[in-house]
Amino acid sequence: MFNKETYIERRRKVMTSVGSGILLFLGNDEMGLNYADNAFRYRQDSSMIYFFGMPYPELAAVLDIDEGREILFGDELSIDSIVWMGTQPTLAERAARAGITDVRPIGDIAGYLSRAREQGRTIHFLPPYRPEHRLKLMDWLGLMPSNQVASVPFIRAVVELRNHKTAEEIAEIERACNVTADMHLAAMRTVRPGIHEYDVVAEMLHVAHKANCEESFATIATVNGQTLHNHYHGNIIKPGDLFLIDAGAEIESGYCGDMSSTVPADPHFTPRQRAVYEIQNAMHLASVAALRPGIPYMDVYDLSAETMVEGLKELGLMKGNAKEAVAAGAHALFYPHGLGHMMGLDVHDMENLGERWVGYAGKEKSTQFGRKSQRLAMPLEPGFVLTVEPGIYFIPELIDLWKKDRKFEEYINYDVVETYRDFGGIRNEEDWLITDDGARRLGKKIPLTPEEVEAEHC
Amino acid sequence: MFNKETYIERRRKVMTSVGSGILLFLGNDEMGLNYADNAFRYRQDSSMIYFFGMPYPELAAVLDIDEGREILFGDELSIDSIVWMGTQPTLAERAARAGITDVRPIGDIAGYLSRAREQGRTIHFLPPYRPEHRLKLMDWLGLMPSNQVASVPFIRAVVELRNHKTAEEIAEIERACNVTADMHLAAMRTVRPGIHEYDVVAEMLHVAHKANCEESFATIATVNGQTLHNHYHGNIIKPGDLFLIDAGAEIESGYCGDMSSTVPADPHFTPRQRAVYEIQNAMHLASVAALRPGIPYMDVYDLSAETMVEGLKELGLMKGNAKEAVAAGAHALFYPHGLGHMMGLDVHDMENLGERWVGYAGKEKSTQFGRKSQRLAMPLEPGFVLTVEPGIYFIPELIDLWKKDRKFEEYINYDVVETYRDFGGIRNEEDWLITDDGARRLGKKIPLTPEEVEAEHC
Repeated sequence: MFNKETYIERRRKVMTSVGSGILLFLGNDEMGLNYADNAFRYRQDSSMIYFFGMPYPELAAVLDIDEGREILFGDELSIDSIVWMGTQPTLAERAARAGITDVRPIGDIAGYLSRAREQGRTIHFLPPYRPEHRLKLMDWLGLMPSNQVASVPFIRAVVELRNHKTAEEIAEIERACNVTADMHLAAMRTVRPGIHEYDVVAEMLHVAHKANCEESFATIATVNGQTLHNHYHGNIIKPGDLFLIDAGAEIESGYCGDMSSTVPADPHFTPRQRAVYEIQNAMHLASVAALRPGIPYMDVYDLSAETMVEGLKELGLMKGNAKEAVAAGAHALFYPHGLGHMMGLDVHDMENLGERWVGYAGKEKSTQFGRKSQRLAMPLEPGFVLTVEPGIYFIPELIDLWKKDRKFEEYINYDVVETYRDFGGIRNEEDWLITDDGARRLGKKIPLTPEEVEAEHC
Repeated sequence: MFNKETYIERRRKVMTSVGSGILLFLGNDEMGLNYADNAFRYRQDSSMIYFFGMPYPELAAVLDIDEGREILFGDELSIDSIVWMGTQPTLAERAARAGITDVRPIGDIAGYLSRAREQGRTIHFLPPYRPEHRLKLMDWLGLMPSNQVASVPFIRAVVELRNHKTAEEIAEIERACNVTADMHLAAMRTVRPGIHEYDVVAEMLHVAHKANCEESFATIATVNGQTLHNHYHGNIIKPGDLFLIDAGAEIESGYCGDMSSTVPADPHFTPRQRAVYEIQNAMHLASVAALRPGIPYMDVYDLSAETMVEGLKELGLMKGNAKEAVAAGAHALFYPHGLGHMMGLDVHDMENLGERWVGYAGKEKSTQFGRKSQRLAMPLEPGFVLTVEPGIYFIPELIDLWKKDRKFEEYINYDVVETYRDFGGIRNEEDWLITDDGARRLGKKIPLTPEEVEAEHC
């Protein structure tokens, strides 16, 4: 936790920004996996952490802007609970650390909100993303799920604050990034033919757990890097495979790291792997070199895509004008995801608040395949923390689909593409902070060039 | 997955047992930790696994007893999903492996159930234990959470089947127990003064992950064994500490192991630690020796408690008649939990169905402190798989509470107890199968006696 002044100031700002009404924060509860009491890792809602620093279940909070109240709703432990859970700080003591002095039983919240509604006051809440949030909004506000519409002013006020990381936040993120880098280094040293993907995951998680960290998201560690949503770890690594890793650590305070790397199963890349890797590397380096305040991140995405097209043209996979190919969306056959996203207390920071507000400053998103997956488009500002993660993939299902439709034949040489359909995928990812005059990599550098990867790996 | 005949036969039995109406199975969905798409480990509901073998989210199933239908409700992957997730078996193919040929879109289930209700037929469902279950019962049956009353005939039919493990299930459980034992052996070799509790957890999880397993529940690994609900891993181990571990592996099929062990931080137990450990060991050995078909597990609990009282009398901590002390509940100051529980697809098997049905054959449970925590009381039968996990603890908060109330002064020497208040706690746990003529330990044996623990540890 930071000093209580941090939380007091954040709450003052969000209340000033919204201006009137009540801000209702829904905490996250424990989640039983296969029965109610079999809960695994607990994770508080990140906005609750940001404004109240309270990583505990069964809490809610109200910032009553009109009446100037800050109230934490939650129940103190019973003596029965203390017997089973040991002596712990009281809720009042914990709340005081965040500068909150008004703590009330959770049973009082429905009445408080009900009186406010009778007074005709607006109750603002953020988008419910867990089923327990929906049940609470039913119980406390009488709103059925279909009527649970989040407050745009509240969303925008939270985004404006959380998008700009302060020095104390950046220090936390950098701690998470350093553990994240160590996870990748351990993986690079482990990958070899004959072991399972889960053997690599075991080494990565061992590093995270030895640092008292959790995964910031479910680790990707796969010989099928071309399958983007891939959390299966049961394959055996074969000679000639490319191994793609996307993983990060979350430290105790909730801040996250998120990096990707790609290593050959064998000691060295094959010439073909290396040729594609060099192109992906060029995308990465061009993107990183472009980072500075004021540049729209969509421009950096375009730059990364155009760099790829130029490279793939040299391999005979693409043809035509690179800028036009990217504007049309032809690059997305090989690069169907975005260049990066905000990162902070959530690994995709504030994804539950909506990309339109977090990454597009309220503007509409493109619907073009590939480009629509860019989570961050707006001009960069000092304090933004974001990922840079271009990739190149050969996705058999997508190749078949586009080829059948003869899609973008003016830019894509499908005959050559066919010879790469068993290639797999390559992605590298780093975490960067936008500074006043440029940008800075967060956390220790992981191997990026083919030479660096092979040196770490062998 | 087992052969499809296994699932067909299980479904036939549960339908025959309930006799009429519709059995509705609610699957578990992915759960976003801090935003909807940031889901970690997925866990299907165990009854869905048991009757359908389908460990996938966004499914529901209906066994229409009256009309003899078995229907799986769920949606096939779209081509968009296949591009991101790779080519996978279709839902119809997966359902066929469990002998289900009738697969319908999830959007059809509300209509199906609505028609059945119009026909006046009963829709049986099991207790909802996740918030998404409650939302589904609202959507599909129009039942608000307070009206979502589970079906006792359905519960009893499921319990009757799942309480009796078959040979193929026992083989799976034993696999989980072997990984569980390896986790404990790794921990015993790791514990030493100067490292953090999470360093021990890291080694245990490394063993689980290298075996492609997950935790069956959140690992307990603590220098504060007297705090029973303790998942904090941030303490540094000190010389003289006792270290208590309670952890298990869950294998890919969903079956679980669950063992406990207690090791000294130093190479050897202190004489005082060893004296209490010997008593706990005697409780364990007496309990295990008593396991056989026909004996009520509550009798084994009484035996374990009486064994403890006799031992604590020798240390001067208790006095009076052991049987009377246990009948009165005086033992629970030191042994406030039960002796064990059913284990299978859930580590506390079917806890969501209610202990009254799973462990008490429908009888009311005791309300006495300590005894009420016994999850399994009824006579043991061949095929039951259960844990044996007696413990002895010195819980300062509980000692203070009882001493203030002068509780059981005829059995407890509080002056002596005070000299043990910093002792901590000891628990050992094994997993046992009740056989036709006795019982059998499942999985490899972990060190149990003080000599065995010290030999593994040093």
